[in-house]
Amino acid sequence: MNTPSALDELIAALRCLPGVGPKSAQRMAYHLLQRDKPGALRLAHALDHAVEGIRHCAKCNNFSEEEICELCRSPKRDASLLCVVEMPADLLMMEQAQCYRGMYFVLMGRLSPLDGIGASELHLERLVQRAQEQPCEVILATNFTVEGDATAHYIAMLLNAQGIKVSRIARGLPVGGELEHVDSGTLAQAVLERRPIAE
Amino acid sequence: MNTPSALDELIAALRCLPGVGPKSAQRMAYHLLQRDKPGALRLAHALDHAVEGIRHCAKCNNFSEEEICELCRSPKRDASLLCVVEMPADLLMMEQAQCYRGMYFVLMGRLSPLDGIGASELHLERLVQRAQEQPCEVILATNFTVEGDATAHYIAMLLNAQGIKVSRIARGLPVGGELEHVDSGTLAQAVLERRPIAE
Repeated sequence: MNTPSALDELIAALRCLPGVGPKSAQRMAYHLLQRDKPGALRLAHALDHAVEGIRHCAKCNNFSEEEICELCRSPKRDASLLCVVEMPADLLMMEQAQCYRGMYFVLMGRLSPLDGIGASELHLERLVQRAQEQPCEVILATNFTVEGDATAHYIAMLLNAQGIKVSRIARGLPVGGELEHVDSGTLAQAVLERRPIAE
Repeated sequence: MNTPSALDELIAALRCLPGVGPKSAQRMAYHLLQRDKPGALRLAHALDHAVEGIRHCAKCNNFSEEEICELCRSPKRDASLLCVVEMPADLLMMEQAQCYRGMYFVLMGRLSPLDGIGASELHLERLVQRAQEQPCEVILATNFTVEGDATAHYIAMLLNAQGIKVSRIARGLPVGGELEHVDSGTLAQAVLERRPIAE
């Protein structure tokens, strides 16, 4: 059976999207060609435009269309706090939680020696330099996975060596969490990291 | 929080893909920009190329880059059989099953009056004309859903009125199926449509 080559090409190209296998790619291609050609053209244009226009902010390393991103330029942000996150999506979650008004540093990954991602790939020297330039507390908000924890540990070591104050966001039960349904690792950590209640 | 507008645009454009919600679109956009810019450009090009180059075969209505698709032009196919399927993906499944060497007609949909899809949207007049031009048996292989069944019923009526031989692919237990695990509707149909065993 011979499908048109442009269709084959499109199906193959769609597979570069994360979580898209051969069946989904086929379904997507058929959908676009049958029902949403304008959407397909808009997507093609948006891809070109984004690849061309988006780079990394020189300060926080997040995606930006300018040299310094809007968040880093904002005078409303508290420059005495610097939150380190793994990915832009994490920064977005922090902003949505509306709990933080400081600055950010986006690692764009996590330490993962097996994948060849070390300190230089994460631009940790830039992070240290930045923390030195402006006295601040660095809040480590990497994920609580093995790699995220290792990354936090490594960064804490680097910054402590420079005498910079470092903290880690709290681990524990989620809001609304019930002891009955939480995993034992989380519960153990929550007990270990218990906080005194002031009278 | 302000994301770059080119990024917002890309996330919005990715949502035209079926099954992609805001979270997936965001993940896809970040993935492409962080890890696979060449893939993003290839996808953009493939989309443009496909939208521009792919049309419908004048005979079978399937996607094709030429006026008449390769399958319709092939002298190896049996022109006395015409299989009607809903979608190109169904045709692909038929071909992969390697059980059929006849021709096809792709409806590109199914009768669905509530969505405004009637006989003319499915080009049924072209199907009837085609079956008249070349004497053949029409095999209806639309899905066994309510709409697919209604579509098959309607087409059968049209073709029978022209004295054209029509059949429907069999309904029953799947290969390897066990009575214990099959739904009662399928089992009831399998009993109803039982076949005599020749001695």
